[in-house]
Amino acid sequence: MNKHIPKNFRVPGFLAAGISAGIKKKKGEKDLALLHSEGPARAAGVFTTNRVKAAPVLVCLERIRTGSAQSILINSGCANACTGNQGIAHTRRLSKLIASSLNLAPEKVLLASTGVIGQPLPLPRVEKKLPALIASLSPQGLGEAAKAIMTTDTFPKAVIRKERVNGKKITLAGIAKGAGMIAPHMATLLSFVLTDALVSRRALRIALQEATNASFNRITIDGDMSTNDTLLILANGRAANQEIFPATPGHRKFTSLLQEILMDLAQMIVRDGEGATKLVRIQVEGARTTFEAEKVARSVANSPLVKTAFFGEDANWGRILCAAGYSGASIAPGEVNIFFDNVQIVRQGLGTGPVSERRATAVMKKKEFTVRIQLNRGSHRATLYTCDFSYDYVRINAAYRS
Amino acid sequence: MNKHIPKNFRVPGFLAAGISAGIKKKKGEKDLALLHSEGPARAAGVFTTNRVKAAPVLVCLERIRTGSAQSILINSGCANACTGNQGIAHTRRLSKLIASSLNLAPEKVLLASTGVIGQPLPLPRVEKKLPALIASLSPQGLGEAAKAIMTTDTFPKAVIRKERVNGKKITLAGIAKGAGMIAPHMATLLSFVLTDALVSRRALRIALQEATNASFNRITIDGDMSTNDTLLILANGRAANQEIFPATPGHRKFTSLLQEILMDLAQMIVRDGEGATKLVRIQVEGARTTFEAEKVARSVANSPLVKTAFFGEDANWGRILCAAGYSGASIAPGEVNIFFDNVQIVRQGLGTGPVSERRATAVMKKKEFTVRIQLNRGSHRATLYTCDFSYDYVRINAAYRS
Repeated sequence: MNKHIPKNFRVPGFLAAGISAGIKKKKGEKDLALLHSEGPARAAGVFTTNRVKAAPVLVCLERIRTGSAQSILINSGCANACTGNQGIAHTRRLSKLIASSLNLAPEKVLLASTGVIGQPLPLPRVEKKLPALIASLSPQGLGEAAKAIMTTDTFPKAVIRKERVNGKKITLAGIAKGAGMIAPHMATLLSFVLTDALVSRRALRIALQEATNASFNRITIDGDMSTNDTLLILANGRAANQEIFPATPGHRKFTSLLQEILMDLAQMIVRDGEGATKLVRIQVEGARTTFEAEKVARSVANSPLVKTAFFGEDANWGRILCAAGYSGASIAPGEVNIFFDNVQIVRQGLGTGPVSERRATAVMKKKEFTVRIQLNRGSHRATLYTCDFSYDYVRINAAYRS
Repeated sequence: MNKHIPKNFRVPGFLAAGISAGIKKKKGEKDLALLHSEGPARAAGVFTTNRVKAAPVLVCLERIRTGSAQSILINSGCANACTGNQGIAHTRRLSKLIASSLNLAPEKVLLASTGVIGQPLPLPRVEKKLPALIASLSPQGLGEAAKAIMTTDTFPKAVIRKERVNGKKITLAGIAKGAGMIAPHMATLLSFVLTDALVSRRALRIALQEATNASFNRITIDGDMSTNDTLLILANGRAANQEIFPATPGHRKFTSLLQEILMDLAQMIVRDGEGATKLVRIQVEGARTTFEAEKVARSVANSPLVKTAFFGEDANWGRILCAAGYSGASIAPGEVNIFFDNVQIVRQGLGTGPVSERRATAVMKKKEFTVRIQLNRGSHRATLYTCDFSYDYVRINAAYRS
């Protein structure tokens, strides 16, 4: 697991920890994490748009409005979703305990949960472990936190970037957990970014929204959208750079750094999709509008028939054209070209023959490749990342709770 | 296979046949069918709304406008989709040959194909077999036709009804093939109904549309929509009943008979969905509008996470509530009740505890059960039929072409 954690995985002014609190069934597995800024920090968040929102999401939505926070408590093993008033009370109780130990207002504590829906948090067990969690906070603890937020993930996801922005070297570090339920409109179950950059509240909010649209909102695993999806960023200003304001060169640089972090995490999440064996880039070009390009890309990326053909390494371009056809976009089948990497397999709606099909099959044997769909109806485009649909997806999800 | 064909499976005035023409790879397997009315017949059809339409669909769309036809030629093993002008030419050529043998205008011949997309029909082989196909036409041949249209189906689908309408006993017989790519908005790949009722063209068209909306458009297997979906009805008037006109008691009776036929076929198709082991009825009640009820039902019925939980016999109601939450309908999670048959597993958004969860798990062990979702926001409802998502779905679709 440690090979997935970058060297010197830390951000100035931040402490972190990850321990086992007995929330997961498997004994000794880490399931409780804490991220903490030594001083006040600016905060922004993006959350699931599912009408059914987990208790910690509801509490975060309320607290994030102030644009500041100092700690994030995360648990895996229990989603604390569909748990009603009791779930909210548990969330508030935990944030109060964390806040009093760390000498903060409870409103400065954000929370996130992931795991089974519809079951209450085992509150006494978690409460008992909070002192140990706080005691193990350290500047080096971020890797342990990355491990503690995993559920069906097979490896922890961790990324770090350092760059000069507005006169100082700043650091951004991100962790994420993904696997199932990775969907349009907010793709990872949980992701957290810490930075020592000094950023205005508004600049931080805008940067997070833009970077999310260009990363997590571009991946899809099974089309389902979780009740718990949460992406949070804390910025503590410790780098003492000139403050970053919206619509400035510094903001563009910061946003693109953040986007790199999130895109790296997003691609790790797709690669680690439940049962996934391949990462496939769906690139749609020549659409009349961006909206239509998106529609085609999502339709292809979410089609179980296309995804099982990826798994079977079958260059079944008919299924791709078919999924484009029912996307709702106004495509003209006779104008469509399709490429697997640089191998053209469809020209003007017709197959290009057995030789290129064999070459396309060779492309599909790779762990990562691009399916490029040219609609030839306009100049708009969209890209999505998806994975294949394997036996293991069914196995993992049929058995998840048992 | 014969146990799936009803006794006396025939309609007065109709002949049918099903033979092997070497289109399918497996030698000797039936893959060519012909349905033929001895006299002129009225005709109506419903077709895929996919932008990518197979050649026979394009030709049928043109011919069905007259409201009359006399023969239907169907092949499995090759979809004749994404085959451009050559595909159209093949379709026209076959209908011309059939027409001249049976002494009809080519426009009276309808066609349908199912199988692999993007490959041309093996025309010489099919042409060579047309005399044998025509020679084997017989009043008893409808069961053989039902077998010849199968692809990954594990059993032929055949239904018959006889009833007195407008003074005479009329007969309706339907066949269908389904399995993969069963989707909203036109659910079976192929289905054909023959009747000896005397029905006006307009009455036939309306009856078919209404009966389809209440049957095939209520089932879903993987959310994909085929390029070839075709539903055709021929009515030859041989029963000599008083002609059926729209908006009359006879029309209502005829429509509901047709709906029974189509619903029986639709449920057989879901039961025989690729890899399906269970037929699940998703019934949504108390929605603010029918549209919202539909949205919730489709979202739940198409969720891979819900469908794998059905397969795993895991009463994971959280996934159902979650899929309802991202459906786009304005649900209030705290007002939702969920039942598995008559076992209430969610009350006002919260689980009803381990005892009812165990009882719900027992319900899930059945081959068929109902998931009832009460939204408590209004008085509208919608019902959909779906199946579970098993290992075999992945196996069948990863390997389909190889």
